[in-house]
Amino acid sequence: MKAEPLSVCEKRREDLYDWMAGEGTHLVMIEDCEGRRNPAIRWLSGQPGDALLFLSADRRSVLVPWDINIAMLHAEADALIPYAEFERRPVRALQGAVDRLGIPKGSRIEIPASTSYPRFLNYVEELSDFDIICSEGGVWAELEKRRAVKDEAEIKIYRKVSAMTDEIIGLLEKNIRAGSLKTETDVAHFIDRESRGMGCEGAGFETIAAGPARSFAIHAFPAYTGEPFGGSGLSILDFGLTYAGYTSDVTLTVAGEPLSKAQEKMLSLTEKAYKLAVSMVKNGIPAKDIGMTVDAFFARHKKPMPHALGHGIGLQAHEAPSLRGRADNDWILEPGMIIAVEPGIYDPAHGGCRLENDILITENGAEALTNSRIIRL
Amino acid sequence: MKAEPLSVCEKRREDLYDWMAGEGTHLVMIEDCEGRRNPAIRWLSGQPGDALLFLSADRRSVLVPWDINIAMLHAEADALIPYAEFERRPVRALQGAVDRLGIPKGSRIEIPASTSYPRFLNYVEELSDFDIICSEGGVWAELEKRRAVKDEAEIKIYRKVSAMTDEIIGLLEKNIRAGSLKTETDVAHFIDRESRGMGCEGAGFETIAAGPARSFAIHAFPAYTGEPFGGSGLSILDFGLTYAGYTSDVTLTVAGEPLSKAQEKMLSLTEKAYKLAVSMVKNGIPAKDIGMTVDAFFARHKKPMPHALGHGIGLQAHEAPSLRGRADNDWILEPGMIIAVEPGIYDPAHGGCRLENDILITENGAEALTNSRIIRL
Repeated sequence: MKAEPLSVCEKRREDLYDWMAGEGTHLVMIEDCEGRRNPAIRWLSGQPGDALLFLSADRRSVLVPWDINIAMLHAEADALIPYAEFERRPVRALQGAVDRLGIPKGSRIEIPASTSYPRFLNYVEELSDFDIICSEGGVWAELEKRRAVKDEAEIKIYRKVSAMTDEIIGLLEKNIRAGSLKTETDVAHFIDRESRGMGCEGAGFETIAAGPARSFAIHAFPAYTGEPFGGSGLSILDFGLTYAGYTSDVTLTVAGEPLSKAQEKMLSLTEKAYKLAVSMVKNGIPAKDIGMTVDAFFARHKKPMPHALGHGIGLQAHEAPSLRGRADNDWILEPGMIIAVEPGIYDPAHGGCRLENDILITENGAEALTNSRIIRL
Repeated sequence: MKAEPLSVCEKRREDLYDWMAGEGTHLVMIEDCEGRRNPAIRWLSGQPGDALLFLSADRRSVLVPWDINIAMLHAEADALIPYAEFERRPVRALQGAVDRLGIPKGSRIEIPASTSYPRFLNYVEELSDFDIICSEGGVWAELEKRRAVKDEAEIKIYRKVSAMTDEIIGLLEKNIRAGSLKTETDVAHFIDRESRGMGCEGAGFETIAAGPARSFAIHAFPAYTGEPFGGSGLSILDFGLTYAGYTSDVTLTVAGEPLSKAQEKMLSLTEKAYKLAVSMVKNGIPAKDIGMTVDAFFARHKKPMPHALGHGIGLQAHEAPSLRGRADNDWILEPGMIIAVEPGIYDPAHGGCRLENDILITENGAEALTNSRIIRL
């Protein structure tokens, strides 16, 4: 009997072992490496990346980190084996885990659904005595679903990172109005320095700061430059802070006078679309309904939105559930999900406009965690 | 008849069409999207990301960008179709390209080798009248090989980004010695601001600035913080500037007195390993020989290196050729390849030490493009 309470990660692993037993899956492999990112490893073990994780039906975990020193500091697992012992090759690591955990021949082994077709063939060949499963269902879907609904520990982290995000939004507004943040780079560095000072790990994604000359793009390229931010016209600022692994994701539009009629209309449409979306966010609603409603709203005004309405956030900036208005989006909102809602429209002649906040779905409705807004100068 | 000379991208496409004709490939699909990055699209069309590119054997190109406004500014292709027209689904886009380009039934179509096994099944099902190829050979290997050997236009860009990198290394040394860059964040922001001011697009990867307390990790986590950089002991600074799409990749170690005997030994071993590696870099040598020699050198001194010796650089921070000392690494160095050579060793008790520069392979030897170094304070 364990004397100590289970850690958050241990609890998640235990729940997953139960699920594996029900499915008859003997071994699960998760990979979080360059080009094949999956922070489910962090969710299950605390390891912040560059590793493989193996979970066996007899409730044991083997973590194979690229950097053993990082794993010793951050990760919990029943065994740690440096990736170098397997020549840093995933197939070798799987073979090593099978040996180490004594997985019987003929067992069902689930490998990541992101495994490429050529590599899948290689796994099947190298582990021909086993039943190798590579599917977007199975443990892949199960982890996606479990991670989409945040637990108490995660919601606590989100309250903290949201408060930090809001504090920075307030500071940004103050400093832009005062003229002390003048360029896109000024704004991006200000966010980065303040947030790291507050204890954030960094940015959830590269900050996009696009002044009036560059806001016509959904994601400006380059993401930020030495060009002016703010000033007359529409500027877009899309950023996320990462705290304890979890990222916020907000977008401000800064609207500087004088504004053209076309720009005023874009602002008004975006605000209306945002309110429309948020009014629909609640427990039990199909996510695609919200996406389709907002798509239809913009289409009616002859200003189609060129991207999805939103997405779940968590250990990744984009995760389940999707809010896209597409027939194959079968996510249903439920309590504990945290979504970023981000309607926006873009015009090469007038610039762009987007408004994005993070919203927690609750039993009885929804709660905006962040307070991003359209800032009129 | 064309009056104007071919653009660099057009020339690359024309060469690839010739190759396709020789292989009997009717259509090639390349994808550069979140989770499945492949900057070969930029190499072939100028489009800086978030797009699909289709090339047909009858020498026509269709670009399907996520953001049409970005594509209008940056890309060249015979046709541009917004991704939204295909519901932003790669399978639909492929079907659309097949229709648009009039690809005959039964044709050989190569899709990205990164395509996951579940998605590969979906392509085969949805395009059952075609011969769908998903292989790490074929066009995938061909593009990797072509991109590994830089052409004149690329070498010209590398001379520029290398000079900017060296200029920043000089400024960093000056400012660290003068005490005006004190923390990891100071150093990271200094690089970012200076390089964007010089016209860089941004960083090739998140700058890693790890002061003496955190340099024991290969890639410190978080990448940089408010902790001191420099000072007594070993600090690691690993950064890359991106100019016109191409990234440099260098690592400095800053060694502050007093240093322990163990730290002095680490510095000396790393410098020796670096010189050993560089002395071997030349046209015709198998890349794995260099990796194996350096691995053996460190192993002899009981300080194994926990990562590969190096890698090609270009539109990605990590691309072909690999310098890893592994039997399956069959790259042979040839003129025009640009590689980052980065021996390093790490110790939880003493910190870490890495030295990395970018090297162009020439007909008669090698040319260091950057001048990163161990800086003793």
